[in-house]
Amino acid sequence: MKFTLLQTDPRSAARCGVLNTAHGAIPTPVFMPVGTRASVKSVEPHELKENNVHIILANTYHLYLKPGNDIILKAGGVHKFMNWDGPLLTDSGGYQVYSLSELRKISEEGVIFKSHLDGSMQQFTPENVVDTQRIIGSDIMMPLDECPPSMAEKEYIRKSGELTIRWAARAKKAFSSTSPLYGHDQYLFGITQGGIHNDLREVSIKALVDMDFDGYSIGGMAVGEPAPEMYRILELSHTLLPEQKPRYLMGVGTPENILNAIERGVDMFDCVIPTREGRNGRVYTRHGKMNLRSAKYATDFSPIDEGFDNDVCRNYSRAYIRHLLNVGEILGLKICTLQNISFFMWLTATARTHIQQGSFLEWKDDFLKRFNDNDKA
Amino acid sequence: MKFTLLQTDPRSAARCGVLNTAHGAIPTPVFMPVGTRASVKSVEPHELKENNVHIILANTYHLYLKPGNDIILKAGGVHKFMNWDGPLLTDSGGYQVYSLSELRKISEEGVIFKSHLDGSMQQFTPENVVDTQRIIGSDIMMPLDECPPSMAEKEYIRKSGELTIRWAARAKKAFSSTSPLYGHDQYLFGITQGGIHNDLREVSIKALVDMDFDGYSIGGMAVGEPAPEMYRILELSHTLLPEQKPRYLMGVGTPENILNAIERGVDMFDCVIPTREGRNGRVYTRHGKMNLRSAKYATDFSPIDEGFDNDVCRNYSRAYIRHLLNVGEILGLKICTLQNISFFMWLTATARTHIQQGSFLEWKDDFLKRFNDNDKA
Repeated sequence: MKFTLLQTDPRSAARCGVLNTAHGAIPTPVFMPVGTRASVKSVEPHELKENNVHIILANTYHLYLKPGNDIILKAGGVHKFMNWDGPLLTDSGGYQVYSLSELRKISEEGVIFKSHLDGSMQQFTPENVVDTQRIIGSDIMMPLDECPPSMAEKEYIRKSGELTIRWAARAKKAFSSTSPLYGHDQYLFGITQGGIHNDLREVSIKALVDMDFDGYSIGGMAVGEPAPEMYRILELSHTLLPEQKPRYLMGVGTPENILNAIERGVDMFDCVIPTREGRNGRVYTRHGKMNLRSAKYATDFSPIDEGFDNDVCRNYSRAYIRHLLNVGEILGLKICTLQNISFFMWLTATARTHIQQGSFLEWKDDFLKRFNDNDKA
Repeated sequence: MKFTLLQTDPRSAARCGVLNTAHGAIPTPVFMPVGTRASVKSVEPHELKENNVHIILANTYHLYLKPGNDIILKAGGVHKFMNWDGPLLTDSGGYQVYSLSELRKISEEGVIFKSHLDGSMQQFTPENVVDTQRIIGSDIMMPLDECPPSMAEKEYIRKSGELTIRWAARAKKAFSSTSPLYGHDQYLFGITQGGIHNDLREVSIKALVDMDFDGYSIGGMAVGEPAPEMYRILELSHTLLPEQKPRYLMGVGTPENILNAIERGVDMFDCVIPTREGRNGRVYTRHGKMNLRSAKYATDFSPIDEGFDNDVCRNYSRAYIRHLLNVGEILGLKICTLQNISFFMWLTATARTHIQQGSFLEWKDDFLKRFNDNDKA
């Protein structure tokens, strides 16, 4: 994996770099919109590009169930299937097996689970999850892990972490012994686990670093623990992870969590917040959140965020979007989704600029103060 | 109204022309996608332009109820409100009062109806419907009419037609005694009625032609009568309507109905078919309809219509769209909607080209044979 660390903030662990993939270079820190089922909900791929999206995320669990590996293989991979020619990262499905499947049995071999779609019994192993991601053709793949419940006993998390390490070794072996199917390089990250326990995190990180993955994700965070606990784990991870490899905090998050994680050395983020909240009419601006369903915007003909440089703010007023949401027009949720994606891309891009300029911490404090004071959602 | 009749087919009543409005010139024959509530469902205005849409339709009934005249007036009209700078036509709401409101009372004065949204009692008169369309700012407005049920007794249709004529006179007067609110010209069409009865149609058309409207719509068609009855009324209307004014067949229709109406001298069409069927995964191609929900497209990686010149066919495969529909992704119905709008614009544009080339009838027969033989929906 060609990750180039360009600059580090002298007063924090914040860093900026470039992550090169066969489908394009990704400036970091970066936010990755979620396109679980090979579609970032309601948005066309060319619109993602127009809104400065560098890389999107899809999910192995969902794609494996539908449309299934046969169709994806015949399509020539997910890039071609969905007409997205930018970088693509796939989550392994470990978290989804845990969160979506009503029935699962974890063993040394892997996990047997019941499809939430048709009730069929399916098996994921470290090996077949790599195989599926070979078929998907993602630029960055994740190994199968176990994501323990946030409230699990430490002993459970310890054992689960050890299993995830053994699975990671098997995933690495499967990755090394197979080749990309579509002529472009693919990379494999390791997923660190260990809950909120420093000692377990250390064991997990050291074991995975020894296996020399292309990058490292920090898993099992933002699953209910208080933010300070997450920040502590990020600080610990920063000291243990290799400086020259990208770090990805899975499933995070709010603007505040993202900026605080950037401060602690994280490079990559994904979260359903922009798309999910957009579908509910909640939009993100540089000055706080707004709920555009509110009647108070009925005659507010200003853009969502005056002067914000995107098509949504150039083209539509709060009053019009509020009308669309109010009468149930699909276009309303699509516009809100685009605004949010655009905002999250702006957020990480602007953080990057300030890291380069040495003004990250001041900007972050300034921005969060303004943003949190104006939460109108 | 500046309507220029450019050419008439020597072997049929088919004609092509240009209809000039303050928001642009419209080549006729033309299909107008429906944006009832100031949104062509799921599609952004710039996408309409990119798919060759010349004029869209919105509905006075719906806009009057939501967002309401106050908001539209403050927005500076619907063009600005929805960010559509092309021509806009508004239906008067007569048909919607008939089809959507559960309770209505028609009198000489107008119609009192119960809002289908909040149950409030509302009144439409010929005058206030013109006023509302002044507020909407539509380039072409329609007068309030009564649209009798298709199975109504002839005597009812006769009386209803007479009422519609008196309302038309009042609408014309209201139109003449008011001015556009936003500095651009607006036009008022007359709506001819009379069901499937030649004598009643003749009375209606002659009375409205005497009032000298900017154009004429043929109302009360495609409400359940057999197609040959509609065609007979179109042929009669053609002989009675002034050649130099545009003719608009409201609510029509299928490609077959549209082409047969063009053959009989109609210039303008609107219908929810492309948008409604698109949302259900039924798409129109030059070779027939297809239902993309069908499993038979699961591994069909060809475009919806190979070689069709639009973004949908350039960007997406049947298999991908089928996947999106299959898993309930909004993007699926948006892509199908765009395909259908694009197809209906192609249909009327191609009819126009063949009228200009003197090959309309041959092309129509050819096209319909191919299209109807391949109805895969």
